[in-house]
Amino acid sequence: MDAPVRVRILGVGMGPEHVTREVADALRSVDYVLAAEKSDDDPLLALRRVIVDAHPGPRGPAEVIAVPDPPRDRSAGLSTPGYESAVTDWHDARAERYAEVLRRRGGTAAFLVWGDPSLYDSTIRVVDKVRALLRGQVDVDYDVLPGISAPSLLAARHRIVLHEVGRSVHITTGRRLQEAVAAGVDNLVAMLNPPPQRLDFTGLHDWTIWWGANLGAPGERLLTGRLGDVLPALPEARAAAEARDGWVMDLFLIRRP
Amino acid sequence: MDAPVRVRILGVGMGPEHVTREVADALRSVDYVLAAEKSDDDPLLALRRVIVDAHPGPRGPAEVIAVPDPPRDRSAGLSTPGYESAVTDWHDARAERYAEVLRRRGGTAAFLVWGDPSLYDSTIRVVDKVRALLRGQVDVDYDVLPGISAPSLLAARHRIVLHEVGRSVHITTGRRLQEAVAAGVDNLVAMLNPPPQRLDFTGLHDWTIWWGANLGAPGERLLTGRLGDVLPALPEARAAAEARDGWVMDLFLIRRP
Repeated sequence: MDAPVRVRILGVGMGPEHVTREVADALRSVDYVLAAEKSDDDPLLALRRVIVDAHPGPRGPAEVIAVPDPPRDRSAGLSTPGYESAVTDWHDARAERYAEVLRRRGGTAAFLVWGDPSLYDSTIRVVDKVRALLRGQVDVDYDVLPGISAPSLLAARHRIVLHEVGRSVHITTGRRLQEAVAAGVDNLVAMLNPPPQRLDFTGLHDWTIWWGANLGAPGERLLTGRLGDVLPALPEARAAAEARDGWVMDLFLIRRP
Repeated sequence: MDAPVRVRILGVGMGPEHVTREVADALRSVDYVLAAEKSDDDPLLALRRVIVDAHPGPRGPAEVIAVPDPPRDRSAGLSTPGYESAVTDWHDARAERYAEVLRRRGGTAAFLVWGDPSLYDSTIRVVDKVRALLRGQVDVDYDVLPGISAPSLLAARHRIVLHEVGRSVHITTGRRLQEAVAAGVDNLVAMLNPPPQRLDFTGLHDWTIWWGANLGAPGERLLTGRLGDVLPALPEARAAAEARDGWVMDLFLIRRP
């Protein structure tokens, strides 16, 4: 057996201003940071470097090791039966690449997770796979530090609570929106959204929406109001966020009046 | 009109280690911190002082002004019709006390919110009431900075994602648990919980539970497993957390197998 490896999964919120004290301490102490590289010019990889460089340890900032992301089969939609197996294959391919680096480098590695690792992020699942791949060769111990989640930031920007007093909030994907409404959900956050033109808002035009794109980034855009009134403005606001930052992620809260 | 007042609502997560860079900056710049005092010896007030003192501005740490909390009518249960009006009356009484301090002191004030201001916290609603009370006398401008939420920390401690791949998570109160299950929810976080003996887990014994109490505090306790197996251990674990810290807050994720 090689020496054990330690992995730290660090939630970094939506930018350097959201780094917590414990995540800053972790960044100062790790040997290197593993980061998926989605393209030669990945803007989110550059943002990760900014965060790492802002927290140098005694020997300077941790090295960021960019690991080219395996190609992902996006032919299956989120609601189709093929979706979960396409995601599983992609997680497996990612895990193999990370396992190779961890075996070679050893020491303490970090993954930086945008937002919080517990919502619509694959890092914990991929690290579980890495552990399984290295079983019998290298012991992998890991911990998770939480980050500011996108729904928390959306609510903060709109200065709202995510639910009415004593009630509930349902967090789901844009594509499962109508399924949740059909089950009686009257207050929900949708994440992982396709462009709004491709979402089904049938029957929801009188609901209230609190929408945000690229929260925390220079391209941040916010809109709120009656859904039917706000809807026509969403595609342009989303495109403006993408034009500014080179990437786009949006989410929204909707509530029955 | 008196000079305008600025209020900053700061999410501080579950302790000093969760303070974000922007919240630390805000603590260094505010004139004072307003804090509800629930008793002469309020342990959460003492924790707030620790966080404020850790981020002194050029003239030292901000002053913490303890505002005695108005008595709350707890005769109405969370699910009863009287609950919302009891909460509303209590918010009104809190708002009056805060408005009085803000009018007298002016400047920039902060509220520290345990966890994140967007989940089961009344600060935003109370500050909205404060603004309304002072309308025509003092302009109150406010912003909200997000914090690490309790569900994020629960997930981090258990090293899990709050939902299966591409699926959803429902966040509700312990007392609304069976209502959510009846609506078809198969994965939910329950917060604001009474002691587990007073929760109705009927039909859920084969579900998996990930439970935590006093997350981030010295009395932190975690339990996970098949709900029916874990249930007998919950009252004692909760009591141990309370005995250690002088207060107790628990929450859990449960998922249909």
